Amino acid sequence: MVSVTIFGKGNMGQAIGGNFEQAGNKVNYIQSDSEKTELGDLIVLAVPYSAVSKIIGAYKEELSGKVVVDITNPVNFDTFDGLVVPADSSAAAIISSELPNSLVLKAFNTNFANTLATKKVANEHQTTVLFASDSNEAKEKFVAALNGSGLNLLDAGSLKRARELEAMGFLQIALAGSEKISWVGGFGIFG
Amino acid sequence: MVSVTIFGKGNMGQAIGGNFEQAGNKVNYIQSDSEKTELGDLIVLAVPYSAVSKIIGAYKEELSGKVVVDITNPVNFDTFDGLVVPADSSAAAIISSELPNSLVLKAFNTNFANTLATKKVANEHQTTVLFASDSNEAKEKFVAALNGSGLNLLDAGSLKRARELEAMGFLQIALAGSEKISWVGGFGIFG
Repeated sequence: MVSVTIFGKGNMGQAIGGNFEQAGNKVNYIQSDSEKTELGDLIVLAVPYSAVSKIIGAYKEELSGKVVVDITNPVNFDTFDGLVVPADSSAAAIISSELPNSLVLKAFNTNFANTLATKKVANEHQTTVLFASDSNEAKEKFVAALNGSGLNLLDAGSLKRARELEAMGFLQIALAGSEKISWVGGFGIFG
Repeated sequence: MVSVTIFGKGNMGQAIGGNFEQAGNKVNYIQSDSEKTELGDLIVLAVPYSAVSKIIGAYKEELSGKVVVDITNPVNFDTFDGLVVPADSSAAAIISSELPNSLVLKAFNTNFANTLATKKVANEHQTTVLFASDSNEAKEKFVAALNGSGLNLLDAGSLKRARELEAMGFLQIALAGSEKISWVGGFGIFG
């Protein structure tokens, strides 16, 4: 059991929080208008990418030594034709460089909220959460904290793989945004 | 019915050729040691990315005006930690720039050969082929030629989306290469 703090209480934040609670953890949420409060052991940034830098500015010291889970898809919503992060980088890499004393882990960005809440893609196939990090400690704590959630977890490798995860997340959003797939469907993973 | 020429007769070339044949098209293969022969209407580059430039050098004029399907995943097989193409580009974009008079379409690179041959991911979920191109003519001809193949086809957008498709293809190969998934599994798509 760990205490989990989730920044943001939108569809994604709530679905992710529900999974941590189901796995037996204590979850609290921080919303943009919240007073500054004490953070748990495992932090989830469930806000738009554009809102991350403000959180880092306000909580940088408190995030030191903690597992920080980045779920963002840094889509350029003006063009819907690419990401706002440099092509050879990723939101996770940038966040990690801004939080050098935190254990940054990328996860959940290739999962639509509904598939996290129901544990099924398109109500039929087991949801798998891809994650990536340079910290084995972060990976172990993340996996342990979600044991019992009903989600399948799959280690995609080092934090460098966040680039591919963010490409996948963007493509999935683009397909749903253009109604080629639904927001309860998307990519399922088969072993 | 169109005539399809496939460069390469490995697992991918054969699985792709089988699909075009099943849909009623005539398929011929060109292997590296083949004599130079006449090309069909729709061309598939089912060779490693490193072998593409030689084909373009030998057949550039003959490829003019034709649909050229790029299936490559330009993985850096020395490091297995990224692609050999620039981060802000893609194999498909480079091939398209080298074949300005051809109608380049990206497809099949997010599908393992077995899933194309069996039409199922992990023998259980309908295989979907993601494709991308700047040419509507190429998309229409590609989709028409595979009508009846048993594959599901999904338009991922402009050729710029090849970047995301190649990221996905690389991630899928990396997951299978590290035995996190099998070579008959991978990403399935749910509507």
